[in-house]
Amino acid sequence: MIARAGKGFMAAAIEEARAAGARGEVPIGAVLVKDGEIIARAGNETRRLNDVTAHAEILAIRRAAATLADERLVDADLYVTLEPCAMCAAAISFARIRRLYYGAEDPKGGGVDHGGRFYAQPTCHHAPEVYSGIGEAESAEILRAFFQERRVAED
Amino acid sequence: MIARAGKGFMAAAIEEARAAGARGEVPIGAVLVKDGEIIARAGNETRRLNDVTAHAEILAIRRAAATLADERLVDADLYVTLEPCAMCAAAISFARIRRLYYGAEDPKGGGVDHGGRFYAQPTCHHAPEVYSGIGEAESAEILRAFFQERRVAED
Repeated sequence: MIARAGKGFMAAAIEEARAAGARGEVPIGAVLVKDGEIIARAGNETRRLNDVTAHAEILAIRRAAATLADERLVDADLYVTLEPCAMCAAAISFARIRRLYYGAEDPKGGGVDHGGRFYAQPTCHHAPEVYSGIGEAESAEILRAFFQERRVAED
Repeated sequence: MIARAGKGFMAAAIEEARAAGARGEVPIGAVLVKDGEIIARAGNETRRLNDVTAHAEILAIRRAAATLADERLVDADLYVTLEPCAMCAAAISFARIRRLYYGAEDPKGGGVDHGGRFYAQPTCHHAPEVYSGIGEAESAEILRAFFQERRVAED
C-alpha cells in the first residue's frame, strides 16, 4: 500500500512536470506529502517568474510552509521527478523534510548523489532519507523530449 | 576607488544585517550592485516569511531579477556579510552573478569555501569571482552578539 501511494505521489509530480513543460518551463515537478495527503505541488517556474530560484522543489516548500504557517516541514515527504540540485538539496534539509523520493538521476546538475552531495557533508544538520528511481524512466523521458523539441525548434 | 566603493557596499550589507537582527532574524545582510549602484538589498527574513529559503542572498537575487525583469544578473556583484550556504551559492551561480564579496567565513554552514564547495565542483556551470574577508570582523561580531543575547535570554 505504501508503495502504491508512493507511486501515486510520484505520478502527481510527473503531472506537474508535464504541466511545466507545456508552459515552456523545464519539465520538472514536485509534490509535498504529509499524513498521506498532498499539501503542496509545483512545477518549475523559473521563466515565468524571472527567478532562478523558482525550481519545483523550492516552490513546493514555500507553498507548504505558507499553508502550514511553519517553515519546518517535519514529517513531510517530497516527491520530485529529478534529482534535486545543490540549492534544492539544501532547502530540503533546512525545511527538515523527512523523506526525499526522486525520479531520474542528474549527473550534471544533481546535488544529492552527484556534485557536492549535500547530505553527505559533515556540516549537514538534517538529511532526509533518500529514495531514487521511482518513475525514473518517465521523468527522464519528459525532460529528454522537451530538450529535443527545443533543439529542433532552434535548428 | 574600487576598494572604497566595495567597502561602502559591504557597509550597506552590514546595515541590512543589523536591521535583520533588530527584527529578530539571524543578522545576515546582502546587497546586489550593478553599474556602481545598489539594485537590490535584503536581510534574512526566514522567520517573518516562514520560509527557509528567505536568506538575504536569495531575497536580493529575487528582488534584483524582478526589478530588471531578467532572471540572469549578468555583471552584477553580490556583497553579503556571511559566506553563502550551499543553497545560496548555487542560486548565485544560476543567476550568473559576476563577483561575490563576503564578510565572515562560515565553517559550519558555508558552501563556498567549506562544505560542498559548490563552485569547485566540475558540474558547476558558472562560478563568480570570490573575494572574502571584507567587513569580516563586524559581520562576525553582529552574529556573535545576536546568538549570545539569545542564549542569555533562554537561560
